This record gives sequence, structure tokens and C-alpha cells, in this order.
Amino acid sequence: MDDVVGYLEAGRERFLAELGDFLRIPSISSASAHRDDVRRCAEFAAAHLRRIGFTRAEVLPTAPDGHPVVYGEWLGAPGAPTALVYGHYDVQPVDPLDLWQTPPFEPTVRDGLLFARGAVDDKGQVHMHFAAAEAYLALRGRLPVNLKILIEGEEEIGSPNLDAFVEGHRDLLAADVGVISDTPMYDADHPSLCYGLRGLTYLQIDVGGPSGDLHSGSWGGIVANPALALARILAQLADADGHVLVPGFYDAVRPLGADERQALAALPFDAARTAADLGVPALVGEPGYTPLERLWARPTLEVNGIWGGFSGEGAKTIIPARAGAKVSCRLVPDQDPDVIADLVAAHVMRLAPPGVRVRVQNLHGGRPVLTPLEHPALQAAARAVARGFGKPPLFNREGGSIPFVATLVEQLRLPAILLGAGLPDEHTHAPNEFFHLENFYRGMQAVAYLWDELAALGPECWTR
Amino acid sequence: MDDVVGYLEAGRERFLAELGDFLRIPSISSASAHRDDVRRCAEFAAAHLRRIGFTRAEVLPTAPDGHPVVYGEWLGAPGAPTALVYGHYDVQPVDPLDLWQTPPFEPTVRDGLLFARGAVDDKGQVHMHFAAAEAYLALRGRLPVNLKILIEGEEEIGSPNLDAFVEGHRDLLAADVGVISDTPMYDADHPSLCYGLRGLTYLQIDVGGPSGDLHSGSWGGIVANPALALARILAQLADADGHVLVPGFYDAVRPLGADERQALAALPFDAARTAADLGVPALVGEPGYTPLERLWARPTLEVNGIWGGFSGEGAKTIIPARAGAKVSCRLVPDQDPDVIADLVAAHVMRLAPPGVRVRVQNLHGGRPVLTPLEHPALQAAARAVARGFGKPPLFNREGGSIPFVATLVEQLRLPAILLGAGLPDEHTHAPNEFFHLENFYRGMQAVAYLWDELAALGPECWTR
Repeated sequence: MDDVVGYLEAGRERFLAELGDFLRIPSISSASAHRDDVRRCAEFAAAHLRRIGFTRAEVLPTAPDGHPVVYGEWLGAPGAPTALVYGHYDVQPVDPLDLWQTPPFEPTVRDGLLFARGAVDDKGQVHMHFAAAEAYLALRGRLPVNLKILIEGEEEIGSPNLDAFVEGHRDLLAADVGVISDTPMYDADHPSLCYGLRGLTYLQIDVGGPSGDLHSGSWGGIVANPALALARILAQLADADGHVLVPGFYDAVRPLGADERQALAALPFDAARTAADLGVPALVGEPGYTPLERLWARPTLEVNGIWGGFSGEGAKTIIPARAGAKVSCRLVPDQDPDVIADLVAAHVMRLAPPGVRVRVQNLHGGRPVLTPLEHPALQAAARAVARGFGKPPLFNREGGSIPFVATLVEQLRLPAILLGAGLPDEHTHAPNEFFHLENFYRGMQAVAYLWDELAALGPECWTR
Repeated sequence: MDDVVGYLEAGRERFLAELGDFLRIPSISSASAHRDDVRRCAEFAAAHLRRIGFTRAEVLPTAPDGHPVVYGEWLGAPGAPTALVYGHYDVQPVDPLDLWQTPPFEPTVRDGLLFARGAVDDKGQVHMHFAAAEAYLALRGRLPVNLKILIEGEEEIGSPNLDAFVEGHRDLLAADVGVISDTPMYDADHPSLCYGLRGLTYLQIDVGGPSGDLHSGSWGGIVANPALALARILAQLADADGHVLVPGFYDAVRPLGADERQALAALPFDAARTAADLGVPALVGEPGYTPLERLWARPTLEVNGIWGGFSGEGAKTIIPARAGAKVSCRLVPDQDPDVIADLVAAHVMRLAPPGVRVRVQNLHGGRPVLTPLEHPALQAAARAVARGFGKPPLFNREGGSIPFVATLVEQLRLPAILLGAGLPDEHTHAPNEFFHLENFYRGMQAVAYLWDELAALGPECWTR
């Protein structure tokens, strides 16, 4: 691999310049004024893929109103595994613009940091894949694996059309392993590989009482109060520790293995500092689990919002006509979002008191993702990260959800490798987004090593 | 009394015309554009009192920015009791104007109903007092009692300056009995006398968590959710029947006597129809009490409003930084608003879970009022209503609070007689407010009989 690494080292300035051109295109997917820029950015990425030797590279439409995807492939390694890389070329808006130290679409390097909207989320990480593939193709005329790359233009607006695109292009996207470079590493001192994401189910509870707000003096005592009924329902969904009280909620939860608990316990975590950073008096949570276990491997139930009646200044003496709450659960394997939604809804309806009307809506959900720690592709990725970053990675999970990763796993039946080179403090979605250039360069090498490591796995490692 | 009744009967058309002039003045206290109208209305009332023979009748200032009160007196009955009549000359706004069938400040009679803003609330009921006093003074040159009348100009904006006015004019307002004509009768078939009002204590609970909204995926599991903590607190303030769970809450509640329970049980109340009118599936409430007992003689705890986090369309996956609720209690004798506020606040603080910061504010309160059923003045008023309306009145209480009545009772130490001639369905505060003319005329007679009945009571009936 010395040739490939040498190529990547020698090309640093050029890769940075190319990424600069990528970043100068203001591909803000949420802004209709930037519609042409988004399209231009897709064409730029496709052209780059063709230039570095991908045998196919196209801009493909999604929905009539949707932003297109970029699809590229190099499939010249018969018998070798096929990797599907996912990334996105669209970026977040840049407001408030006056907080940027340098313009968001004029990439600027300061102290080894590359500042620009999209620097780390996600153009910089997409470009690591461009550079790694180029090195192989330029030096050897071939990659050690078959490579497909799907670069989305709607990630920052919730990927509204991607599931349908995948459903319509199952054969095109068929692969042995999915590689996503869009998650941060654990911290600056610890390269890491994310092997799990929580799922989600999101509900709305509406409690209706009288046909209009009532005078609380004239009617208080004979009418059920919808806000109080709602509070009583919510209070019975989880106990004070956050342990969920919905019958059956934990039935499908895959218990943490001793090895995984040991691995999580090895991760540095400072509870007092985290509490201070978040501004809370103390961390809380289910007894019997460490904070990281509670964040990554245990399901939760949260009230995301609550409303009803009078919330202005001063006093208004009413019994509110209605009250409502948004309630969501983060899920872990093998919880199913729709099953959990039904369990929560049934429990809420059981708790509904007389005198009010209760309705529960299932707004949306996403499945949890977990790549087994012992999966050969994950272990190969760990070796690749160790070679690229110079030290073995930690294995971490994420408490959040990336619905498209679940789509890759569920619809395309791929193990998911979340190989990110970003760090948690790089101002993604905020002014002055940046990417540590050193991680940009190390990330390229880690990706190059990944293809080398995956190619070395035997056919027994792949389920396809 | 034939002379007085005859005078009132003979003068019907003139009293209606005078009331029309009173109603034509758009004395909307909440609208600064009507400031001069409010003043003009006060001058109109004072001039009328002088014209009918009150020996003193003045427009007196309240606060520098406040609307004035009208004060009138006739004190020519040495040895007789002194009554203090309270009413108000200001009115509610008239929006939405297009829903009025005839203009709100052009009084119009249709089918025996007088339509105008203020017709029943409260100019029409004030004018009953004007007419009754005029009848005595015109026919006999004297009233059977000493009469003081206080007509406020800020009732519809919460009487912000009235307590201070009373405090500064204790001697001026000293009396033996207070008479308020600003509550409705029980229903059209039942003239009634209100002998009790509930009090109020109004609190705000704020629950603070993280310094900003947190991503519920990234942080769910280790951070207390303020909305859920609030729900858990509220759920422990009252049970599903509405029975309040705050320790000590019921300690000062005066139990209902057997005679009063019997009197309340005699009142017609249709639970099914009330539920249908209010739009609720069923009436609820504390077991062991009838609906009217729960409305009038039992304290309550209501959530008047609740808020926190995301309440828009769709889904936002946050742990809210904060949540809050407005909570109020209706109180009955002998509960003290400040004592109850302290008990609720202490209970809330005991319930406050770790991981959040809880604060309770006492926003305001008012004392309950109860005139003993056996009070001679109340019994005299009952005889007066029976003579004026042709059938004996029911005795009812009100679930709501009229803070100024508590002021009369507490600061001036008067028994309160709530002699109203309005009905519950007369669109007060709404478009097309009206007053049944027949009740306007009967109300005058009831007031005239009241002075006759009060004058007949011996000095042992008065505590002053």
C-alpha cells in the first residue's frame, strides 16, 4: 500500500484545491433560490468521478420536484466484494451569515482547519472517497473492490425521496457492504467506528375536552381538565428514572453482551463535565446502566413538546378545551418502530380517563441499526482506521438515528460501516463549520486501506 | 309599598328611556380611544343620582391613569341600617362588530329583550337601583335605609385600582350590608340569590433543564426531560377524580351542613344536558358530592395552561430546555389563598425530581365569600326577591370569584347580598348582549322591597 499512501500524501495540495471547488458551489438544498446550484454541484461531482476513472457516473433524478442523486460505479474486480458508499453533496443554510469569520462558500484554511459550509458535512468526507479511489485507479488502473457511490442532494432536508429511489434501483445499488462517512469520531484523541444507531418512533397525543375553553370557576369541579389528563397519561409512560412503563416495550430489546459492555466501559466519559456542558444539575437515567449504555444501547421515551390552554403572561382562569404532546421513543435492536408505536398508543388509550377524548397518531419512525462487533467487514474497517489514523479505533454507537442507514440495512441487506473522519465540535449546521485538514488526509488513507482490507476477506464473509 | 310599586310600574317607559341614554355612551374601559366616553359615562351617572335626590354624588379619581368611580349617598335615615350598593358603568369591547344584529350602542327592544352592550352587565342592573331609590325619594322624600352607591369604571379590566380606593375611603364606604347586582339568577324559571363565591389562588410552575433544547437522540437517556418532569409533578397534584393530593389542602374547608346540602339538592340540575352543552363525553368529579356541591362548595385544582418544546406540525426530536404550567385552585371557606399557594408550592418542590430546576410563583389570589344562609340580611333579601319576582328565590352559590366582593367582605366587613336580575344566557361579553326587560322591571321592585325589608330588621342584626 506504500504506492497508494504515497500518492495520497503527494496529492494533498491538489485534493484540497479540488475540495475547495466542490465547496464553492452553494448547494443549499432547502433554498429554492439555490436550486440551480444544487444541480450544478451534482454535475460537478459526477464529472469528477468520470475524470478519476469511474466507468459510470451520472446525475439521476429522484422525484419531479426533488434534487438529483449522483451515482458512480467502477465494477472491474470480478470476484471481489462490492461496496456501496453513501454521502451527500447538499449543505445546510448559512444563516446567520454575519457570524461567519470568512464567507461560507469561500473555503479558507486557518491553523490547519478548513472553514466552509459543507467542509465536514459532508463534501469533505465525500472527497476522501474521491481521492482514495483516484489513487488506486491512477496508480494501478483498478480498485481492489467493486465500488458504487451514491451521493445524495437532499440529506439536509430529510431525504424525502431517497427511500423511493433505492426501492426503484435495488439492482443498481446491490452490494455487499455499505460505507457511510457522515458521522463524527468519538473525540479528537480517539479515532472511532460507529457500529450502531438508535431507531425512532414519533407519536402525537391529543386530548380533547369541552368544545371551547371553559371558565375554571364556573365549571371547575365537574369537567375533566384535558391538560391534567394529559399530564397523568404522560406521567405513566415512564418513571422518574426514565424507565419506560409501557407493557411490552422492552420485550424485543437485545441485551448488551458482556463484551460490548466492556468495550463501552473502556470509552472515556466525564459525567460531571457533560452535565456542566449541557447546563443540567445532574445526569439521570435508568439504574444499572452506564451513561453511554443509556445513550446508545437502551431505548428511551421523551416528551418532545407539550401544549394546551393559556401560556401568556399573567393569569387566565380557564379549563383548556384541549391539550397535546409530541412523544417519541429512541429504539434499539430489535425493537420495531411500528410495534412500539402500537404498544405506546394502546397504553395511552388504556390510561385515558373518563371525561376526555384521547387520540394517538403515529407520525413516523425509523429502525435501529446495529452492525455486530464481530462482523468481518467491521473488523476490516477497524484495521483500516488503525492504519489510516495510526491508532486502533474505539467502537462507539450513536444515540441518534440516520434513517437512510436503516434503509441500506433493511432494503439492501447490507452491513453498515460508519467510517467518519469528522469530530463532534466542528460546527456542523452552524456558522464557521470546519474540518480538521489532518483528518481529511488521514480519512483518505483509512478509506484506501478499507478497500484493501475488505478485498482480503474471503467470500464466506458476505451474505449476498 | 303600593305607592312605590305603582311608581315603578308607571315609570317603566321613562326608566327604559333613561337606561337607553346610559347605554348609548360607549364606556369601553379597555380601549384608550374611549377614555373620554368612560369619563362622560361617570358624569352621566353622577348627574342622574343628583337629579333623583341623592344628597351627594361625585366622580372620584382612582389612580392617575385609572378610570374614576361614581360615589353617591343619601344618609337621611338615622338609626336605620346603611347599605352599600356596588355596580359598574364600564362595558366590555364589542368585537366582532359584524355579529351584532343591531349596533351595540343603539339600544333596541325586540320581543321584550333590550339589546345593547352593557344592557345587563351592568348598566341595566345599576339602573334598577337608580329607579328604586328615585321611587322612594320622589314619593316619600326619604329612603327607609341609608344608601351609598359605588359605581366602578374598571370592572371589565379587572378592577386594578378598586382595592386601593376602598382602602383609602374606608370611612366613606362604611356600611352594614353590601349589595351587588352583577351576577345572574340560576335560570329563567328560578329567581335566586347567590350567597357564596369561590376564591382563587393562581400559580405558575417552571421546570428548567438543559441550557438549550437538546437532540433527543444524542442525549436521550442521561438528561431529565423537563416536560416529562412537569407532567409527573402535575399528575401528583390531583387524582383522576379531581381530588387534590396536596397535603393540608382540605384542612380549612368548611364542611357542607346537612341543611345546605338539602338546599342544593333541591336545585334543578341536568347532568346529561350540561355535558352535552359543554361538549364533554361525561361530567366527572369528586365522589360523594353532587355536581352543584363540586362546583360551588368544593375546592378544585386546574391546569389552566401548559407549554414546553415543540408544538408545530410534524416532528422535532428534542428534549425541551424548559416547560411550564399555570395552575390554579378555586377555594372555599375557610381556605386562605396565600396558605394554599404555599402548600401547593411546597408539595411541588417536594415532587421536583433530580436533574431539573423547579420554580413556583404565586401570581395572585382572592378569598372565597360565603354569606351564612341564616344571615338576617340574606333572609330579608330573599323576602324582597319573592315580593319582586312573585316567587321565593332559590339560594345558589357561584363557582367563580368576584375579587371585589371579597374586598367588601374582608376590608369593609360587610355581609354580601348578591341580588342579580340577569340570566345566564344573556350574551354578556359577547355580541348581542341583552337583558330581559321584565327582569329589569322586576329587579327594580326587588331592590325597593330590599330597602323595606332591611329597614325592618332590628339593630341586633348588624355587626357594626
